[in-house]
Amino acid sequence: MPPFTPIIDKLPSTVPFVGPEALERRTGAHIRARIGANESVFGPSPKAIAAMQAAASESWMYGDPENHDLKAAIARAVGVKPENIACGGGIDGLLGLVVRLFISPGDAVATSLGAYPTFNFHVAAAGGKLVTTPYVNDCEDPQSLLALARAEKAKLLYFANPDNPMGSHWPAADVERLIAATPEDCMLLLDEAYIEFAPEGTAPRLDTARRNLLRFRTFSKAHGMAGIRVGYVIGEAGMIAAFDRIRNHFGISRISQAGAIAAIGDADWATHVKQQVFTARKRIHTIAAENGLTALPSATNFMAVDCGRDGTFARAIVDGLLQHGIFIRMPGVAPLNRCIRISCGTQQDMDALAEALPQVLKRER
Amino acid sequence: MPPFTPIIDKLPSTVPFVGPEALERRTGAHIRARIGANESVFGPSPKAIAAMQAAASESWMYGDPENHDLKAAIARAVGVKPENIACGGGIDGLLGLVVRLFISPGDAVATSLGAYPTFNFHVAAAGGKLVTTPYVNDCEDPQSLLALARAEKAKLLYFANPDNPMGSHWPAADVERLIAATPEDCMLLLDEAYIEFAPEGTAPRLDTARRNLLRFRTFSKAHGMAGIRVGYVIGEAGMIAAFDRIRNHFGISRISQAGAIAAIGDADWATHVKQQVFTARKRIHTIAAENGLTALPSATNFMAVDCGRDGTFARAIVDGLLQHGIFIRMPGVAPLNRCIRISCGTQQDMDALAEALPQVLKRER
Repeated sequence: MPPFTPIIDKLPSTVPFVGPEALERRTGAHIRARIGANESVFGPSPKAIAAMQAAASESWMYGDPENHDLKAAIARAVGVKPENIACGGGIDGLLGLVVRLFISPGDAVATSLGAYPTFNFHVAAAGGKLVTTPYVNDCEDPQSLLALARAEKAKLLYFANPDNPMGSHWPAADVERLIAATPEDCMLLLDEAYIEFAPEGTAPRLDTARRNLLRFRTFSKAHGMAGIRVGYVIGEAGMIAAFDRIRNHFGISRISQAGAIAAIGDADWATHVKQQVFTARKRIHTIAAENGLTALPSATNFMAVDCGRDGTFARAIVDGLLQHGIFIRMPGVAPLNRCIRISCGTQQDMDALAEALPQVLKRER
Repeated sequence: MPPFTPIIDKLPSTVPFVGPEALERRTGAHIRARIGANESVFGPSPKAIAAMQAAASESWMYGDPENHDLKAAIARAVGVKPENIACGGGIDGLLGLVVRLFISPGDAVATSLGAYPTFNFHVAAAGGKLVTTPYVNDCEDPQSLLALARAEKAKLLYFANPDNPMGSHWPAADVERLIAATPEDCMLLLDEAYIEFAPEGTAPRLDTARRNLLRFRTFSKAHGMAGIRVGYVIGEAGMIAAFDRIRNHFGISRISQAGAIAAIGDADWATHVKQQVFTARKRIHTIAAENGLTALPSATNFMAVDCGRDGTFARAIVDGLLQHGIFIRMPGVAPLNRCIRISCGTQQDMDALAEALPQVLKRER
């Protein structure tokens, strides 16, 4: 075989996440409650579904490579200009691009230990040097991250607010202090995938003049469209234009563009989904308490539930629930991995969890 | 702004192709015949449309990141094993990945002068050194490419059969000689985007044991689904597994996966589309002849039409046709750019072309 590049040659063939379909194939389980990937079981807006169905027969045409109408719709909804928006294949795809824009082999990248694995996957593929600082009290810690970025001369600093997998959040004032203190030659990547579920006052004000800040958002969570693969990044216009140098210009499906445009215009559906999520969060809290477990506060559409022991115990609960047809996930590193992570589900999903969890716990305890 | 990598810093912000929507926005033209991007105006299979419409409401779920069912369907249709298939965001997306797997800054990559610009775009983004050899008699030339790859110690050799933008093809025996003669440490990228339109005996036999050959195919052309962004690559299993090291695992839309599975199972539709394409090719040939132009033989769903002068003249025809609402494209380099490139269209599209072309030619001559 022709030789891979030295960086690729050393990469493991690991996958950031195993999908629920793969779990079913490997274990023979039949998943009846799909509450592990922080998808929105409440579905896409009916208007988005209709728009996608109407666009299906037009799929012989490439989608607009400039994403003109989609960027205009997002810009209007967010309150910036279209030139401050770039679209990509989910936040995952955009994180891959931003790593390639800035990271040469050996360059340092700062993140929290246990934060988003797919970001780390992209950093590894570019030969970047990942440096980490632990969560503090189950939260990403802006002060530690900042100190780390300075000490290591990091070119990228990843910070999710609200965070995944713990569901914590920092108020806007704290995030704005982080933004202001980030060194000029370091790009702050603010992942706001879950921002729609956070309390008022969580999102910092938009500042599209700042050249070392990129904010990532998605249609996968609150908009209930993980399957369409559309994320977007908000930033200074010159910086946003740089994505054009390497992105797959025709990469976003035509149907997906139509669906996302319809979704972002349906504020009523967003309100409906948020209410469903808040209801489910309360239910997860109750189910956890009834089983002697502690649900952590959440600003997202999932909850980390502290199981009170170590990662082995939590893993046994995750595996046990899968045997009952309930798909959840858990954080990857200690001490976060004393928790399991449960996405907000329908009442039926939550009933299934309430029924299965005591049985699994009884066996594991 | 934080500094880009040295490679990115030097990249121009050029775009491989300007989309028809962008042309409309820039020129004010209203496109009535969209026959410039080699899309299939005959549309997707009705079964694929139905499958995509049914999948729309399921878009709250990520698509299967392993593309299990899609790979199984492709493998069955093509006659290989699923482990010989990797899927990606069109051939464009897959070419981007393969460049990143093999090309370190300064590595040589061989292609024909005037061949697929998006491949060159990806090579530039990796800092590769693109080396080219001209078309010979309006065909890519396997012997020149081979000599070039050897002389430059190219790590990748790109060859499209049938080729784009000229529509020429080589019989399988010639391609098999090229495959056999490619140096072991050079990966031959055989782009077969248009293979379904070529005469019987154009595709070399499948050899999934060979480790320095990757064959690229797509749902964008014969399957009439450019908008869904699904391409696939056929190769040796170990090589195919390497894509997992860097690909965006959740990158293919759930609707797209459903549509592609339905499309590949609809052989009747494929036959129907081919017949429509053959009819349109004859019509383009006739229209060209009626206007004193020469349509080149084509093994694809488009035709290169020799306009008998230089690139400036051909460009004037392309621009003139756009003012009549007819979107076509043309090759980018001399001497290929004495031609215009017209995609097969509906009878209505062809009628529009037949009506407008004499007017445009009259003005330009």
